Amino acid sequence: MDSPDNSRFIKACLNQPVDRTPVWFMRQAGRSLPEYRLARGTLSILETVKNPELAAELTLQPVKRYDVDAAVLFSDIMVPLKAIGLELDILPNVGPVIEKPFAKVSDLDRIRKYEPEEDAPYVQETIALLKKDCRVPIIGFAGAPFTIASYLVEGKPSRNFIKTKTLMHTLPEFWSPLMDKLSDLIIASLSAQITAGVHAIQLFDSWAGSLSRYDYQEYVWPFSKKIFDALTKNFGTSLPKIHFGVGTSAILDLMASTGPDVLSVDWRIPLDKVSPLLSENQAIQGNLDPAICLTSFDTVAREAGRILRDAKRRSAPHEKSVSPSFHRGHIFNLGHGVLPETDPDTLTRLVDFVRNYDSTSDDVQP
Amino acid sequence: MDSPDNSRFIKACLNQPVDRTPVWFMRQAGRSLPEYRLARGTLSILETVKNPELAAELTLQPVKRYDVDAAVLFSDIMVPLKAIGLELDILPNVGPVIEKPFAKVSDLDRIRKYEPEEDAPYVQETIALLKKDCRVPIIGFAGAPFTIASYLVEGKPSRNFIKTKTLMHTLPEFWSPLMDKLSDLIIASLSAQITAGVHAIQLFDSWAGSLSRYDYQEYVWPFSKKIFDALTKNFGTSLPKIHFGVGTSAILDLMASTGPDVLSVDWRIPLDKVSPLLSENQAIQGNLDPAICLTSFDTVAREAGRILRDAKRRSAPHEKSVSPSFHRGHIFNLGHGVLPETDPDTLTRLVDFVRNYDSTSDDVQP
Repeated sequence: MDSPDNSRFIKACLNQPVDRTPVWFMRQAGRSLPEYRLARGTLSILETVKNPELAAELTLQPVKRYDVDAAVLFSDIMVPLKAIGLELDILPNVGPVIEKPFAKVSDLDRIRKYEPEEDAPYVQETIALLKKDCRVPIIGFAGAPFTIASYLVEGKPSRNFIKTKTLMHTLPEFWSPLMDKLSDLIIASLSAQITAGVHAIQLFDSWAGSLSRYDYQEYVWPFSKKIFDALTKNFGTSLPKIHFGVGTSAILDLMASTGPDVLSVDWRIPLDKVSPLLSENQAIQGNLDPAICLTSFDTVAREAGRILRDAKRRSAPHEKSVSPSFHRGHIFNLGHGVLPETDPDTLTRLVDFVRNYDSTSDDVQP
Repeated sequence: MDSPDNSRFIKACLNQPVDRTPVWFMRQAGRSLPEYRLARGTLSILETVKNPELAAELTLQPVKRYDVDAAVLFSDIMVPLKAIGLELDILPNVGPVIEKPFAKVSDLDRIRKYEPEEDAPYVQETIALLKKDCRVPIIGFAGAPFTIASYLVEGKPSRNFIKTKTLMHTLPEFWSPLMDKLSDLIIASLSAQITAGVHAIQLFDSWAGSLSRYDYQEYVWPFSKKIFDALTKNFGTSLPKIHFGVGTSAILDLMASTGPDVLSVDWRIPLDKVSPLLSENQAIQGNLDPAICLTSFDTVAREAGRILRDAKRRSAPHEKSVSPSFHRGHIFNLGHGVLPETDPDTLTRLVDFVRNYDSTSDDVQP
């Protein structure tokens, strides 16, 4: 078996040829697993994150069950904010809730410098435990500045992001420093995870798809770029960086130009439409609709097969001849997190399907 | 003053040159207006629709207040379904709720043929009243088959459309007849509105943006196309047909190819990115983010100005020289409905801004 550093997941992220397409699932560690519900019991997410043994166990559960090609750290995008003292919680079936939402310039003082070693040592301890036991690469992650800012300003998950857009447009002396401070906090968080040993990171800009292209470009792009630039400067180009969004079909080229190695796309746009929006060295992650996993396995297999064919067509033009076993630049995943109602057996079969795709593949047409 | 049939709204929809860009707002008749809340009182939406005098009054309120270039019939996309006897209601702050959601082939029998003159005469009576009093074109509308189907299957507004996608993918003997029956019902509804005198129609596929491009193409496109084809066949090409969606950046070309005269787009994608996805004769409607109307008027004016400039750049390449007063192929609107929290004065000022844009316009760069 390859070491995590030399695994097919890492190679695929860096757009190097691999023996087969790697696969993992966002929220693979989560409520869809009975062993997860049993292990977490009545503990809140934030309490669970503070327990390294438990967080490591939850991280490993889906690796054991599904035999996926990567583990994703059990944590939450709000952990660094909680760790610097903001009053917030993650409520079941709701999401992050902030006791006193941000609304004015003086609120910026509430974001102090994040010192991961002192403020959230448990995150790094979880990674240290995983380094001993986990045979696949570990993905660390953080929320992107816009998505975090939207929670801080709205105080809860939002549909229209009215308060966030109002402050973004009307109070530049609030918005720019907020995004800048969050960028620094996110750089600190991801740097500490990398130093502790994760093999790749993913930046989740889950709500960037609510923005117009103009707003994304002007008020969000520079800060996400700052994060990828800092990580590349500090850790080089061999540690893969993934950028995630949903509903972002109109801004994929802008998200790609912030500097990730991999763009994670939702199911709305086929991979062959994503390709022209990326630089030639960037890989794609995705893009099965999580709702498809609740239909029938015939449907899952048909849609997964289509995605794998689209990905192969994308990588084929670069090669003189295309072998059926040629794979490059694609990490199979869902377009968003696993839905809690998903039958874990469907995901087990889906991993098998992706693993065995070559032998069942009927068309590789460059 | 031009007659409604010869108005700038109709001309703009048909991609003919106009003296200035027409403007109206989706949900301009609605909860954001104090006179609306007063007139509707405690009546439900469906009760209100059944009262032609009241429905006509609500339709006219925003025309009087804002001096917009079109009136949109006060009605609801679920009216024809209620009129053929389905047990459903429109709940405040929720949306359409169906007592017994559709789940099996035998449920298809619950959709009987819709006879607008017998089943919902009040809709046509409202239009007849408006024909006497309304000096601007009247827009009739219907929900598109997918959006209606999603309500019938989910039983209420949905986030992930799991049940709808399951039936779509796994039960073709349910999905195709359902979509076909809904298409017939929608054709009947729109035809009756046109015969009663509306000057344009809009087909709302509000939730099409939840679908993958493949799913849209295979399971939805043929039925929306059937509707536009039937209307063109029965009423010719001079009655404008508008197609609306939100979050549809990845399928705009497909929506355009169903055959509307106008594609209504949300705020995520700039108009100059929409243009290449349309045929040369198709016009664009949109695309201000409704949330922007809750920021500041400076922001509203800046964003509206940007949209108007984008639209002018789009139409300019077809002309040898571009006069500042040249306008074609754009109807100013929001990218989705007016949010209930919107200050009506903002919309009054926005209409003025659009009307006076030429004199304040600083750049027409072909």
